[in-house]
Amino acid sequence: MSWLEAELREQPSALATLIDREEARAREVAAAFRRDDIRYILIASRGSSSNAARYAQYLLGRANRVPVMFATPSLYTIYEQPPKLDGAIAIGISQSGASPDVASVLAEARRQGRPTIALTNDSASPLAQQADHVLPLDAGEERAVAATKTYLNSVGAIALLFAAISEDEVALAELKAMPEILERQIALSIETSPPLDEYRDAVGATVVARGVNYGTAFEIALKIRELSGLVVEAYSPADLMHGPIAAIQPGWPVIVVAPTGPARPSVEELSVPLQERRARVIAVSDVAAVLRRAHTKLPLVPRVPEWLSPMTAVIPGQVTAMRLAQLRGLDIDSPSGLRKVTLTR
Amino acid sequence: MSWLEAELREQPSALATLIDREEARAREVAAAFRRDDIRYILIASRGSSSNAARYAQYLLGRANRVPVMFATPSLYTIYEQPPKLDGAIAIGISQSGASPDVASVLAEARRQGRPTIALTNDSASPLAQQADHVLPLDAGEERAVAATKTYLNSVGAIALLFAAISEDEVALAELKAMPEILERQIALSIETSPPLDEYRDAVGATVVARGVNYGTAFEIALKIRELSGLVVEAYSPADLMHGPIAAIQPGWPVIVVAPTGPARPSVEELSVPLQERRARVIAVSDVAAVLRRAHTKLPLVPRVPEWLSPMTAVIPGQVTAMRLAQLRGLDIDSPSGLRKVTLTR
Repeated sequence: MSWLEAELREQPSALATLIDREEARAREVAAAFRRDDIRYILIASRGSSSNAARYAQYLLGRANRVPVMFATPSLYTIYEQPPKLDGAIAIGISQSGASPDVASVLAEARRQGRPTIALTNDSASPLAQQADHVLPLDAGEERAVAATKTYLNSVGAIALLFAAISEDEVALAELKAMPEILERQIALSIETSPPLDEYRDAVGATVVARGVNYGTAFEIALKIRELSGLVVEAYSPADLMHGPIAAIQPGWPVIVVAPTGPARPSVEELSVPLQERRARVIAVSDVAAVLRRAHTKLPLVPRVPEWLSPMTAVIPGQVTAMRLAQLRGLDIDSPSGLRKVTLTR
Repeated sequence: MSWLEAELREQPSALATLIDREEARAREVAAAFRRDDIRYILIASRGSSSNAARYAQYLLGRANRVPVMFATPSLYTIYEQPPKLDGAIAIGISQSGASPDVASVLAEARRQGRPTIALTNDSASPLAQQADHVLPLDAGEERAVAATKTYLNSVGAIALLFAAISEDEVALAELKAMPEILERQIALSIETSPPLDEYRDAVGATVVARGVNYGTAFEIALKIRELSGLVVEAYSPADLMHGPIAAIQPGWPVIVVAPTGPARPSVEELSVPLQERRARVIAVSDVAAVLRRAHTKLPLVPRVPEWLSPMTAVIPGQVTAMRLAQLRGLDIDSPSGLRKVTLTR
């Protein structure tokens, strides 16, 4: 078995470890969000961590009502003109904690006297050293270059932080049920993985989602891209409609992430233009009607609370990415030209 | 001549009109940024306007030192849980001013007592009605579906606002020189437009830039995509290195936007991995060494101040998009399935 597959299958236990070990620490970190001068959350990240950051943007923005912005590292590193961060609480997300650009943003926030938090799998990393509070990802060592369990645990850490900040015991209980649900999702996705032969020679694909799963679309796109070398991109339905849909040609695969929830109708509005363009729709959903209409079906375990659906919805994407790479005869653990730790300024 | 080409050629005069008519109004609007409770700028936009917003993120973030965040419209429309906007000044950018999602963000900001500004080509639009201040784009009617002069004037309006906010008379003088420089850039890009036959059957391309031209990369990608139907995507070099570079296969066209300035070395660091992957590099640059190394050269007029280089750097992208669509025999003014005004929630 590849490291990737082993780590993909380890995700439920990795999440359980995170919740088990860090519940108390998450409550401590949550206290930092209650400073009365906090007006917004600033997140620095790259790669898969940026997709977890997109989850944070919706989750913290939606329920905690604090708007979330992404840092523009080049202002800190290349232009050396960082913005004034009055009102900010800064979060760095990085499994390795090693990329200088992400650490630079936290260092600057700290220099300006703002609270800083690191979500990292390495508590001794340069990123962790810039943080007032470290929330460890507890994912264990990840050997495959493409992130699976560190991504899932980044999402898990944000969910844990959300439950702690909002002091929402129902949310915490829902989160604690997720490792078992993830076990079922992984079994379901592996058992029902459709034959992907028709996509083996595809050039690329487009992944679409909205709301809490917007980041899921980016993570599925990145995973397929890293593992199979296909050109895969992610869009919200609204952004796709404002021009980029022009590139959806007949037969182009479009992965629609549409679990039950308020964002689903918005994603489904795409079905008419996608049909007109004769795209091959691949649906990630727990909704029978959505799956029935799709060319290829990637079913989700039903009745997952929408705010936690990014954890289950990413799984069929990971499995599809892995299967596609196998079909294409590629090295799953070390995709060509990629490194586990990427250092950028 | 197509509407698109006519409007592309009109850009210098459209920009001159904007600067001429709105200098005084920009100073009035700038006063709103001096409220002492402003901690960040919130921008709502879609499509080409989002690419102008990316310019604002760097320009206002860099010199005015106010961080800039993009709104997540679904929090306002789908989830109906807008964040608290204490500390925000909200800007809506939309040529039509008609898309409900963009107007919703401004409406909510106003409801919360925050200052609101609209950058729009229609001062009677729903977006303009939600704004305390309207900065008209003065681009005149745009008939081609793909935006050219409304994009350029959105960038111009942001530059004008920047000069006004920072009370920088040197910057204002530099901006006033741009219509004449744009005339030269358009002539240069049309005269030196390389034969694109080798790209006629390309499936897609990747556009790379950083810093103030990050939005230029997205706009060039969108323009080629809308006009030619190719799958074109945009990345910063750092984001590309964190995984997505896996999809750059031999022969894949990569457009590198690298005008003189602090961001150039970061973009140039990509040349080694791109060479290893045998990408066909198309360089947009005023730097002889960068052009010399490129497979296809799209020269820029030299000595444009870096902060204004997004105005010239987009031109070769627009010309390339138009030429590629002509080569592919497509309807340049009305790309298949696109509308001039897109309404999304």
